[in-house]
Amino acid sequence: MKQFINAREDVVTEAIDGLLRNAGGRLARLDGFPHIKVVVRTDWDRSKVALVSGGGSGHEPSHAGFVGQGMLTAAVCGDVFASPSVDAVLAGILAVTGEAGCLLIVKNYTGDRLNFGLAAERARAFGLKVAMVVVDDDVALPDLPQPRGVAGTLFVHKIAGAAAEAGASLDAIAALAQKTIDGVFSIGMSLDTCTVPGSPKEDRIAAGKAELGLGIHGEAGVEQVDFEGARHAMDMVAEKLKPHLRDAHHVALLNNLGSTTPLEMSVLAEELCRSSIAGKVSHMIGPAPLMTSLDMRGFSVSLLPVGVDELNALKAPVAPVAWPGMAEVSEPQIVPLPDGLSPIQPMASDHAGHRALIEQCCTILLGAEARLNELDAKSGDGDTGSTLATACRALTSALDRMPLADLTQLYRALGSELSQTMGGSSGVLLAIFFAAAGDASANGKDAVGALSAGLDRIMQVGGAAPGDRTMIDALAPALAALDKGLEPAARAAREGADATAAITRAKAGRASYLSSDSLAGHNDPGAEAVALLFEGLAKKN
Amino acid sequence: MKQFINAREDVVTEAIDGLLRNAGGRLARLDGFPHIKVVVRTDWDRSKVALVSGGGSGHEPSHAGFVGQGMLTAAVCGDVFASPSVDAVLAGILAVTGEAGCLLIVKNYTGDRLNFGLAAERARAFGLKVAMVVVDDDVALPDLPQPRGVAGTLFVHKIAGAAAEAGASLDAIAALAQKTIDGVFSIGMSLDTCTVPGSPKEDRIAAGKAELGLGIHGEAGVEQVDFEGARHAMDMVAEKLKPHLRDAHHVALLNNLGSTTPLEMSVLAEELCRSSIAGKVSHMIGPAPLMTSLDMRGFSVSLLPVGVDELNALKAPVAPVAWPGMAEVSEPQIVPLPDGLSPIQPMASDHAGHRALIEQCCTILLGAEARLNELDAKSGDGDTGSTLATACRALTSALDRMPLADLTQLYRALGSELSQTMGGSSGVLLAIFFAAAGDASANGKDAVGALSAGLDRIMQVGGAAPGDRTMIDALAPALAALDKGLEPAARAAREGADATAAITRAKAGRASYLSSDSLAGHNDPGAEAVALLFEGLAKKN
Repeated sequence: MKQFINAREDVVTEAIDGLLRNAGGRLARLDGFPHIKVVVRTDWDRSKVALVSGGGSGHEPSHAGFVGQGMLTAAVCGDVFASPSVDAVLAGILAVTGEAGCLLIVKNYTGDRLNFGLAAERARAFGLKVAMVVVDDDVALPDLPQPRGVAGTLFVHKIAGAAAEAGASLDAIAALAQKTIDGVFSIGMSLDTCTVPGSPKEDRIAAGKAELGLGIHGEAGVEQVDFEGARHAMDMVAEKLKPHLRDAHHVALLNNLGSTTPLEMSVLAEELCRSSIAGKVSHMIGPAPLMTSLDMRGFSVSLLPVGVDELNALKAPVAPVAWPGMAEVSEPQIVPLPDGLSPIQPMASDHAGHRALIEQCCTILLGAEARLNELDAKSGDGDTGSTLATACRALTSALDRMPLADLTQLYRALGSELSQTMGGSSGVLLAIFFAAAGDASANGKDAVGALSAGLDRIMQVGGAAPGDRTMIDALAPALAALDKGLEPAARAAREGADATAAITRAKAGRASYLSSDSLAGHNDPGAEAVALLFEGLAKKN
Repeated sequence: MKQFINAREDVVTEAIDGLLRNAGGRLARLDGFPHIKVVVRTDWDRSKVALVSGGGSGHEPSHAGFVGQGMLTAAVCGDVFASPSVDAVLAGILAVTGEAGCLLIVKNYTGDRLNFGLAAERARAFGLKVAMVVVDDDVALPDLPQPRGVAGTLFVHKIAGAAAEAGASLDAIAALAQKTIDGVFSIGMSLDTCTVPGSPKEDRIAAGKAELGLGIHGEAGVEQVDFEGARHAMDMVAEKLKPHLRDAHHVALLNNLGSTTPLEMSVLAEELCRSSIAGKVSHMIGPAPLMTSLDMRGFSVSLLPVGVDELNALKAPVAPVAWPGMAEVSEPQIVPLPDGLSPIQPMASDHAGHRALIEQCCTILLGAEARLNELDAKSGDGDTGSTLATACRALTSALDRMPLADLTQLYRALGSELSQTMGGSSGVLLAIFFAAAGDASANGKDAVGALSAGLDRIMQVGGAAPGDRTMIDALAPALAALDKGLEPAARAAREGADATAAITRAKAGRASYLSSDSLAGHNDPGAEAVALLFEGLAKKN
């Protein structure tokens, strides 16, 4: 059983209690578990027309998820895919119906029609005004004698809900609901069947196939079709809907049948807006799970021709959080890219000291290429030396166009250069190091202070600190000692680098995935590079 | 490929456009497709601190779905499970950042840290104030050196979003975000891995197993555990979270990792509220898909210790419809069942004529049992005669306690009797017929008029009309002729019943599923029963 449930017979009652506990006190249930599963509003005063819907469970958030201000007054829940009993429906009606009466919104399944129908009769015997409408929006077969009620039911809940909230009469609301039912049409498609709790999954739909025109109870679709991607799928759905379009704007309700991912649903929304019926669709509800079929990986599209009144009713805010609202469909708005993505090339300038220092650094690191590669091979992919050498060669050849005389600009240019020429995480980190140093320099820090600010930044961004077996173990002590001169800095860097050989648990970088055994006894190559660099500089100066 | 996508490389751009088209004009994207995928608010004036988040895609509705008033200002989207480029992040920052500055909210993955980090440096070189926080809420391993950022990130978006909306400074918002990060902790569990578009699904988790402590990129969980249902699963999750609880109220965020059904998520919500940590959870966000991992059938729980300020920030309304709001957790509210579910037994009374009529009807139908069964065997399950006979026997023995003298009460009692003793759809329909007749009688209709009202009601509830090959084909003409006497009614019923033999396409009832061949040439058993009844009554009277 690959489902987050407990015993099959407790699924619906547990799900209802889960809903109630997190409804902020807006919802309650009748004291009839397990046979009578009715969710009602707690903020209901019976002065308005009550809307009662329901049916088998397995379609969550329908129906209990749509109980609340502006939508349903009560939901009568059957077991999974099973109609609720007459007693349960009657309990729901009696619990919420006052003098204004009650409208039953029923999907077109024999069991639901009969049980809601008989419950309505029994309620009428108490003198209650009860009307009933039957939703039959499925257009899978053009001449189906009894079209099923599917996700188009949500339009009825919402439009009748807005009218009830506004205080309309039972007759007016029933007429409005019937008008909505007469207008709405739906069709669904799925790549997979659904898994009924406690039953094995039926493996009906082969790879490369989809079912078109399916119901919401796992029943087979009207046809199996080739599946060739989201666009083709939506095109087939659009073709089935097209003959039913009216000479009007339509609202599309894009329903997730259960286990389709939000990513896929957004792709389907895009395809609906590009499809052959897009010109007739002015507004969209969803994509969202509205009337699911357990874990079916599918979707359905319901369309309702609308005028101003329907749009206003659909727009009206409601309490149930499962209602995703409605938005006017538009072309994607595209705004120009901001300026500044191509960094302005700084004015080149020369500075003998800076030029010599950079050249020295590059010479030292180029000379250390083999040793650093060898060290890296013990705990990584053996390319630390080569990566640095590549960057040094590029840097050396770029010196003539660099702003050598302006330290702030130079730091920034070094960062920019390294981000372009040095691959991997270390390239990005060195780019951040120099860019942050430039930033600090611009804010008045001296040369060494700016480098320390760069160090702080890469520690923050990279998430590493001294002791984590990274280049920081050498760089941090070296920079701390640099005010005293290059030799103390070199000694500090060496000490830090050598200490990494004893750090057998890396906390950052690729070495953090390695075992202690493969780390013990040799220095971190990044720290070693820093130590060699400072040692080289100290010797030459 | 069982996914509603087109080409793998277009998934993210198409999903973004699908989102934009249905965002009611609230969102736009930068003109940088396919490399720069940045979604921004259109209602943004840069006077407030901008919040920029993002990362790899495949986590929808994160991150683009949370762009909007009260949450993110921009989302920078990478390809599926891949960090966005430095240029993309920089574009996002530059597009929305004004003098108040910008906070980057980054999940703790090396690629995201580095790319967002370097972009921040480049933005700072333009003089922009940019701060960055790194979310690391995963507690799968107690001593993980670099805990992953998972669904707890939503708390940061929401709390920082409320502060930014209220006009707080960058420093204040960054501190608030960091405080949230310091507090939040999360863990996930899944029954299945996820399917990366274009790649085969890894079948890592055996039947009966679940993974505990997993990430959001399909990486293996920290441990495989036995899966024994929703309660046991939530208990394991609660045990992992318990050591991190503070001495405070906590808000729980219950996240759907992708393809878990709404039904299952409600069961999990219930289990969370019953778990060993429930006493520390005062509010809940969700269940909802917030930070998914493509189509993973799993969930995660994130907990944040909160005070009044955090609660207010989390409560504040926002524009993004993907945000499910927060509710105070409560016990399920239970209200008593309404009175009236057990119908009041009417006072028994006698009436020789009515008693004789009912007895006659029962005698006739009992005598027709074999013939009706035989007829029904041709188009159904062969029990029409037996079903009616059972009801007739029960009715005969109930006559002494029926209100025979009061026609209104008698009709209702007949309906109630039949609903209790006669199984199947026909029993419910006859119950509705008599209940509706009683209702009409109470409203002043005469005996026959009341029966006609009953007929209208079963036509509405059952969805059948004359010509649909049901008992209505005999009952409707019989009742229409009944004013002229029993003999004309019997003739009309017979004519109607015989005509059903030529109706080869049933529109309602079980026969609607049968082919023409199995229907042609014999009468509908329900219509035949009505004809035999009226013929028998006409003969005897």
